[in-house]
Amino acid sequence: MAIAELTPAERDAALADLGEWTLAREGKAIERTFAFADFSEAFAFMTRVALLAESQDHHPEWSNVYNRVEIALTTHDAGGLSQRDASMARAIDALL
Amino acid sequence: MAIAELTPAERDAALADLGEWTLAREGKAIERTFAFADFSEAFAFMTRVALLAESQDHHPEWSNVYNRVEIALTTHDAGGLSQRDASMARAIDALL
Repeated sequence: MAIAELTPAERDAALADLGEWTLAREGKAIERTFAFADFSEAFAFMTRVALLAESQDHHPEWSNVYNRVEIALTTHDAGGLSQRDASMARAIDALL
Repeated sequence: MAIAELTPAERDAALADLGEWTLAREGKAIERTFAFADFSEAFAFMTRVALLAESQDHHPEWSNVYNRVEIALTTHDAGGLSQRDASMARAIDALL
């Protein structure tokens, strides 16, 4: 089953719902940067995101430098943003 | 206690010892890309690297996309590569 790319209207609605995430890659991805007290807290968060990613079978493109974690979400099968990204972003935000 | 940047000769010797790591950032860092079967294996590796990083109090700059992990090591206090990076690289390689 193909996963549909969000229409511009759906994308705007999703972004309005996800206050801290911003559009990236010419609208093909959403990104958010998270800052923690130190590496231990940052990696604890990453571990929880990894468990989410496996359970949703939807994996982030992400990087970490000490206490900072940058996460980008996109859906390759959709060629851009899909409902899976919005759902994953909400689940990540719910961890905080 | 200040951490010394490796001299060019020391850097060359360290790199010769670390076959899979390459110089990056104009000689200020070393990098290696690791590929695994899937995200689960990649993140399991990242977890082991995170434990190493905490125990050595020396943290990587790294990114992950599904089964791939890119790690860069540099020592900010030394303004470039130090013995801590070579030591960390060897410890990471020993995980494999």
